[in-house]
Amino acid sequence: LRADIISIGTELLMGELVDTNAPYLAAQLPPLGIELQRITQTSDDMDMLVRALQETSQRSELVLTTGGLGPTDDDLTREAIAQLLGEDLYLDPPSLERLQETFRQRGASMSSANIKQANLIPSARSIHNAVGTAPGWWVENGGGIIVVMPGPPAELHRMWEVEVQPQLRYRAPGTVIVTRSFKTHGLGESALNELIAPLFLLPDATLGMYAQAQGVQVRVRVRAQNSEEAQRLLLPIEAELKRLLGDSIWGVDDQVLEEQVGNELRRQGLTLAVMESCTGGLLAHTITQVPGSSHYFRGGVVSYSNDMKIAWGVDPDLILDHGAVSPQVAQDMARAARDRMGADLGIGITGVAGPEELEGNPAGTVHIALAYDGGSTHFTRRYPSQRVLVKQRATMQALIELWNFLSRTDGDKGEDTGA
Amino acid sequence: LRADIISIGTELLMGELVDTNAPYLAAQLPPLGIELQRITQTSDDMDMLVRALQETSQRSELVLTTGGLGPTDDDLTREAIAQLLGEDLYLDPPSLERLQETFRQRGASMSSANIKQANLIPSARSIHNAVGTAPGWWVENGGGIIVVMPGPPAELHRMWEVEVQPQLRYRAPGTVIVTRSFKTHGLGESALNELIAPLFLLPDATLGMYAQAQGVQVRVRVRAQNSEEAQRLLLPIEAELKRLLGDSIWGVDDQVLEEQVGNELRRQGLTLAVMESCTGGLLAHTITQVPGSSHYFRGGVVSYSNDMKIAWGVDPDLILDHGAVSPQVAQDMARAARDRMGADLGIGITGVAGPEELEGNPAGTVHIALAYDGGSTHFTRRYPSQRVLVKQRATMQALIELWNFLSRTDGDKGEDTGA
Repeated sequence: LRADIISIGTELLMGELVDTNAPYLAAQLPPLGIELQRITQTSDDMDMLVRALQETSQRSELVLTTGGLGPTDDDLTREAIAQLLGEDLYLDPPSLERLQETFRQRGASMSSANIKQANLIPSARSIHNAVGTAPGWWVENGGGIIVVMPGPPAELHRMWEVEVQPQLRYRAPGTVIVTRSFKTHGLGESALNELIAPLFLLPDATLGMYAQAQGVQVRVRVRAQNSEEAQRLLLPIEAELKRLLGDSIWGVDDQVLEEQVGNELRRQGLTLAVMESCTGGLLAHTITQVPGSSHYFRGGVVSYSNDMKIAWGVDPDLILDHGAVSPQVAQDMARAARDRMGADLGIGITGVAGPEELEGNPAGTVHIALAYDGGSTHFTRRYPSQRVLVKQRATMQALIELWNFLSRTDGDKGEDTGA
Repeated sequence: LRADIISIGTELLMGELVDTNAPYLAAQLPPLGIELQRITQTSDDMDMLVRALQETSQRSELVLTTGGLGPTDDDLTREAIAQLLGEDLYLDPPSLERLQETFRQRGASMSSANIKQANLIPSARSIHNAVGTAPGWWVENGGGIIVVMPGPPAELHRMWEVEVQPQLRYRAPGTVIVTRSFKTHGLGESALNELIAPLFLLPDATLGMYAQAQGVQVRVRVRAQNSEEAQRLLLPIEAELKRLLGDSIWGVDDQVLEEQVGNELRRQGLTLAVMESCTGGLLAHTITQVPGSSHYFRGGVVSYSNDMKIAWGVDPDLILDHGAVSPQVAQDMARAARDRMGADLGIGITGVAGPEELEGNPAGTVHIALAYDGGSTHFTRRYPSQRVLVKQRATMQALIELWNFLSRTDGDKGEDTGA
């Protein structure tokens, strides 16, 4: 089954909104054995919309659309599909009733603009929207399927999971595509490419790689009759990749570094506290994205001035002697975080997020320190002087250093036990 | 001039990467008078790529591509354009020299895989990449232009700004498209639609609106001979929108709430400190995204346990009596943040990010408090129980409440001065 995704909205073509719906849907298709041909973003413009729908339905048996189902005058997805199929819109009483019920439950009065959200065409049946007001459409006409879904991500995700995905699974063909991604750190794209070059020639698998904020990712893709066979094909490739890349791999698939680090902390029974200045809370925010992080994360301090650093326990003499942006202060922040918050591990980050330099340190300079029972380590990095990037990369680097530390301590323990 | 954007990369069609390059470029085109037709995302597959290039060059005089210029075997953009135009690739000595120079400067040895990044075809000239190794291509053939740019955002942005945008400005037609967006809060999409319905009928302007994390946005778009004329057309529409929406507007265009709040804090000479639990550092992170935030942001505490809250000054009796997730504790966190960090204003956030409930409070429950000289206010919200959403919405809501407070205090001051 071949598919196309269309994301609809003038805001997308004005560059005002980053489309996360297409990636969400795209990631859902391979396990269903559905081959995504292309992603298209088009504006809320009748002609453009009809043309995009025409082209995609010629190319693919399945077209998934998101967006343009709102109550306002510029939402035209329903109208465009009616025009594409030469059918007339009519008000569907059950849909209207459900819409009115939604408003009743919210204790809100329904605007007359919302009525058009209850429209249907003869080839479409309504798809329930449990989270918002716009129902989706399941359109079948001449062998092809168009699934029309709302743009707000929470509404889309729920509708996909509960209503659309089960239907598509039922119709899915006999093959599946399984992908496994290996997430690495410390290796550049070219270096990685040379290491794994022989694997590019494998007959059953397609390899790819790309650079990400969290390091370079190696992706293996196999197609098989069923997921058991796919796993069988993946197994030896996985083993070979692990042999070639070893410690450079920190995770697979949709694992994220903060989650891996969290699992490791829990496994080793360690707690963590952080004191950050230039990352301004991003490190704490990233750590607490993980459900259950309260089990190992004691807390964080965003010390955005020298006074604050001193108030939270950093030695004022170190700031005086070496400046606030120095390895010494980073180390003392890590120590103070650990001491003050009673954690096993402390991370300190001080640096210049930019765009301006600070105390003679150019924007992008960052010192990261890790304090543990009986010692500490620190790292200095120079990033491109873009504020958002500096915060992101420094946060990532701190987690990578923590990951390395946890891998090492674990290895040490292993040796001790073996002796 | 009509344009198409193609974002290239198998990771996009696997849903592994969210494309921010197309939105970046899309936002750059209207001021140049360039009309974006469509955004296409396609995989690193020769046939798919050539077909996408063919279709877009038929539809648009200008095609902008990003991605697929890396050194590895799966990067095929150069090869696809050569095939599209029926031209042969050759190694361009100046490009190779520049590539070698880049590696020399980095103190790294150049891998043989990188050599293909110095390839050209007769219809293309090389575009300098100041940030990475892959040069872009400027391709002219039969009247159409294809501009080929790298995928890593930092490389793309630099190349666009320094090399591509100036060239396109030079060739741009005599009309410009100017867009103004009004960012609102506190009004739903339907309510807003009814308020501004008459403006949808304006002959010179196109209106649109869409819901965002920071509230609903109203977009006005005009086309004119030059930017002065566009501003003249916008002026009365802007005035009318301000009259209709009043205080619901908190900003325009690319203004973000944290920046608006920051400007207001600076203008009023106030400082801010925060203590947050369920948002886990996201509030501090958001505040410190603004360059110069150190002028008004004293710092933050991520108090991820009751011990931590008490250690940072929250009254243990309040936690005992009302539970950690309570309006009382939120208010005391706001007070403690203000007192302990010596700020004029303190924000406290406590709640349940989820997915699990906490002390009988369902996931999504959030209490937000604002402490100021002589008092405090608080708000309780129930969000859908998705961890990431809860953190985002609670952070947004805290900033909105702060914005409201700053607007009110400013109004009060204004009245005082007038009296």
